[in-house]
Amino acid sequence: SRSINLAVIPGDGIGPEVVAQGLKVLGAVLPQDVKLETKEFDFGAKRYHATGETLTDADTDALKRHDAILLGAIGDPSVPSGVLERGFLLKLRFLFDHHVNLRPSRLLPGVPTPLAGQPEIDFVVVREGTEGPYTGNGGTIRKGTPHEVATEVSVNTAFGVERVVRDAFARAQARPRKKLTLVHKNNVLAYAGHLWTDVFNRVAEEFPEVTTDYIHVDAATIYLVTDPARFDVIVTDNLFGDIITDLAAAVSGGIGVAASGNINPSREFPSMFEPVHGSAPDIAGQAKADPTATVLSVALLLRHLGYDAEAARIEDAVSADLAERGENSRTTDEIGDALAGRVAG
Amino acid sequence: SRSINLAVIPGDGIGPEVVAQGLKVLGAVLPQDVKLETKEFDFGAKRYHATGETLTDADTDALKRHDAILLGAIGDPSVPSGVLERGFLLKLRFLFDHHVNLRPSRLLPGVPTPLAGQPEIDFVVVREGTEGPYTGNGGTIRKGTPHEVATEVSVNTAFGVERVVRDAFARAQARPRKKLTLVHKNNVLAYAGHLWTDVFNRVAEEFPEVTTDYIHVDAATIYLVTDPARFDVIVTDNLFGDIITDLAAAVSGGIGVAASGNINPSREFPSMFEPVHGSAPDIAGQAKADPTATVLSVALLLRHLGYDAEAARIEDAVSADLAERGENSRTTDEIGDALAGRVAG
Ligand SMILES: CC(C)[C@H](C(=O)O)[C@@H](O)C(=O)O
Ligand SMILES: CC(C)[C@H](C(=O)O)[C@@H](O)C(=O)O
Repeated sequence: SRSINLAVIPGDGIGPEVVAQGLKVLGAVLPQDVKLETKEFDFGAKRYHATGETLTDADTDALKRHDAILLGAIGDPSVPSGVLERGFLLKLRFLFDHHVNLRPSRLLPGVPTPLAGQPEIDFVVVREGTEGPYTGNGGTIRKGTPHEVATEVSVNTAFGVERVVRDAFARAQARPRKKLTLVHKNNVLAYAGHLWTDVFNRVAEEFPEVTTDYIHVDAATIYLVTDPARFDVIVTDNLFGDIITDLAAAVSGGIGVAASGNINPSREFPSMFEPVHGSAPDIAGQAKADPTATVLSVALLLRHLGYDAEAARIEDAVSADLAERGENSRTTDEIGDALAGRVAG
Repeated sequence: SRSINLAVIPGDGIGPEVVAQGLKVLGAVLPQDVKLETKEFDFGAKRYHATGETLTDADTDALKRHDAILLGAIGDPSVPSGVLERGFLLKLRFLFDHHVNLRPSRLLPGVPTPLAGQPEIDFVVVREGTEGPYTGNGGTIRKGTPHEVATEVSVNTAFGVERVVRDAFARAQARPRKKLTLVHKNNVLAYAGHLWTDVFNRVAEEFPEVTTDYIHVDAATIYLVTDPARFDVIVTDNLFGDIITDLAAAVSGGIGVAASGNINPSREFPSMFEPVHGSAPDIAGQAKADPTATVLSVALLLRHLGYDAEAARIEDAVSADLAERGENSRTTDEIGDALAGRVAG
């Protein structure tokens, strides 16, 4: 009999509220014969304040013993900027080698967008997750003096670029339009840009059915608001991916519905799924948070574990729910109930 | 009697077409007693193909002898990506220490925007122009092998950050709303982020009337499409500035109307003014290019040289022209004539 051994990290702010709905929908969609075991972890601001810890070796050992991780959100204004980001979120991406950071964008009918004319949006960004300017390389000399120099080193390897580019080509190949766009800034960041472009062009030869193009990251932001329909699959660097996926979320229904997966395709370590939004402490505890992004992250999680039909059921439920949502606001729980009802039906 | 000694670089593609209109409007707006002298330079793809040169020492010496530089656009698909960008555009920004890269965004009435609901947009981005990931620091080892490693080093100095932050505070202070937003990614790029944040907070103490806030670059792209009215002046790093100013241009009327200045406030070297758009070889020679961005760049040039009234006349002319533009398309020359007529009037 099948089983899913899930690590759950509710986290800070609205994290616990949205994760509760994600688990509700997960429970409702899974067939009877699948045994779901969950274990909750207390990472985040509270634990940090109590113990000074963000993620210990014992923590990662415990997390490793799971099939996947569901994360709500981590972060609180009471913790200095960067401490939880680097001490927990990024640390886990690096330790568990989450090199495919997957961020789909679909503008569903009935969903408000800041763009005029309700354009067609249905693409997925494959953001590299373990290299680029995110490696923490760099340093500071003469800190706090008028002669301070601070550096950040973007590290890019053929190994790291090739595996994520290959993953993106495979995803493009599996989609109807079969189109892959490389986003970089190879006219300025020439060393990294050359590596990315070179690897991209080489891997492209193995995927003759996939149409390819290249766009500078600055121009990509223009297309995301003037012609988002041109994108099918995008592959990009860690930092560019961070930036353009927030913009992509904004134009395709907002971060209330943007899901993401921090994926280790080899399954050597558990992958982690989380909404793109943060902990939103300003609305925490008010039952106002939209759990849709978390529920869609559960769908990504299920697909990663091979439950394709269940993932599709969740995505269909969300589409139907968004189409009928209308103007009247519902609580976090009501949205979760509605989605759970649909997937169970 | 007063004089302006102007270096003109028409460049590639539509560059010469739009520069011709910029000069036409400049000639029309200047008072009789101002002697305008222009000298044309042939930088760009043609010169590169003929001589292999992008910008020689003799060239920069010649450019130095001018009060300012007006640039159309540089770049052509026949030249490998990066050669003219790094060999000319960036080289000049660095040699002439153009550390204030000024990019205003205003959505004028009647101008189409991809955003729904015609939001209010009137802000200016002060992009650092001589540091960050643009310094060309970095390198490649084992090029072309499966073990290639490519690095890019973002270099940030207290000196470089402070002068541009100070410039941005002064600009914010001079505007009615007096608001300055720092855009960075200090939760991940901690070394550079700390320097920027620290300098920003210190300089803020000297400008008690200016309201300040901080936004991560990824979140900034969200606000640029959901709530652009929140911005007054933005100060940011070279790369983040590159990205968000293209997005800013896209939402506030498109790159057809986006002007920019590469400014050396000390006037030690001439500043350079140019439209944000590129050489657009696909529409070159067809009289289709919109010269408005170049004409607005001429206004920035005039303001830099102290001709505030003339700069304002050009900006008013552009506003009036855009408001009355309507649907029928005009040639490059017709738009230039209309603007020249208005400023002369
Ligand atoms: C919180 C932060 C470290 C993170 C990132 O920059 O990757 C976030 O913005 C994201 O996109 O998941
Ligand atoms: C052409 C390129 C080098 C340049 C930049 O990246 O600065 C351009 O995008 C700009 O914004 O002026």
